[in-house]
Amino acid sequence: MPLSLNPAAQDLLFREARTANTFSDEPVTDEQMRVVYDLIKYGPTAFNQSPLRIVLIRSPEARERLLAHMAEGNRPKTSSAPLVAILATDHEFHEELPRLLPFAPDAKDTHFADRPVREEAATLNGALQAAYFLIGVRAAGLAAGPMTGYDAAGLREEFLDDDHAPLMVVNIGRPGPNPWHPRLPRLAYDDVVTAV
Amino acid sequence: MPLSLNPAAQDLLFREARTANTFSDEPVTDEQMRVVYDLIKYGPTAFNQSPLRIVLIRSPEARERLLAHMAEGNRPKTSSAPLVAILATDHEFHEELPRLLPFAPDAKDTHFADRPVREEAATLNGALQAAYFLIGVRAAGLAAGPMTGYDAAGLREEFLDDDHAPLMVVNIGRPGPNPWHPRLPRLAYDDVVTAV
Repeated sequence: MPLSLNPAAQDLLFREARTANTFSDEPVTDEQMRVVYDLIKYGPTAFNQSPLRIVLIRSPEARERLLAHMAEGNRPKTSSAPLVAILATDHEFHEELPRLLPFAPDAKDTHFADRPVREEAATLNGALQAAYFLIGVRAAGLAAGPMTGYDAAGLREEFLDDDHAPLMVVNIGRPGPNPWHPRLPRLAYDDVVTAV
Repeated sequence: MPLSLNPAAQDLLFREARTANTFSDEPVTDEQMRVVYDLIKYGPTAFNQSPLRIVLIRSPEARERLLAHMAEGNRPKTSSAPLVAILATDHEFHEELPRLLPFAPDAKDTHFADRPVREEAATLNGALQAAYFLIGVRAAGLAAGPMTGYDAAGLREEFLDDDHAPLMVVNIGRPGPNPWHPRLPRLAYDDVVTAV
């Protein structure tokens, strides 16, 4: 039972794609990020709420500010990656709903008037979009190194605001020397899937 | 600046893939789900924690129990989809860490001893894996219809337990007649991405 997706694409996105720990010097351009976003923006979210927001760390000064909030073990790779992106989710995403969900312009107020409801929805749907982004980076032939080891409050204060919460920080670039550890085990189908 | 991923694969996974609202009668087999899982299990999670758990609704009796907890607007498609899956996340995922993260057998206790820490990690990483699953269903040439419109407490009590929380319910199958609404707008790159 083969997949419709061709084997080379399966390898590129999942089987041979790995979380890189070292990177080459080759820059990652805004044009590459634009092509990635223009593909992954189509991934589904509930109510098309699309809460993902991305901060690209481009200046050396911003890189230094970021490093100060990363866990110590994540600093060397975050320091050397050609591009680092903060993926955040927007707790005020509902303000965009009238244009994102034109057939239900009231959803903004009927479904998402309460901030706690929005925060829960933005966490889930922002995470879905973060995963689409990781897949998109791989689709561009680049390695992604997602990390959650950082001081979230500090990162938020430094680069975001009260309406935006960080989901992860991602190192992006072509793999460098000895870029990855051996592949870790995964749970088997029968460990994960049950049928009723 | 083209992507490394070939255009047909881009279309299959993102551009032409859509959230189906109607389905054909063609069954979705366990073998198909096994092939999907054996691809998407490689998607990255923090600490390789792999918290996603999947309940396939196979029996008519289970389908009836599920429908009772779905929002009314989701019932017709959830009733007609060839296969419905509950995607859940395991708040006790740390019990598997000794075999998933063999080089750091203590992570179970050093990082994830506290339940609230585990719940937050399981929500984020379970959502990443849910997105990989949606991509994997599309990679199999099937349409996925993810939904969060249900009574979460009821669903949890009916099909899960105190250690597993639902993330979404997904209708899976080949698209039927008039399967989708027109594509909704997406946010532009410059609405989503900033550089510092």
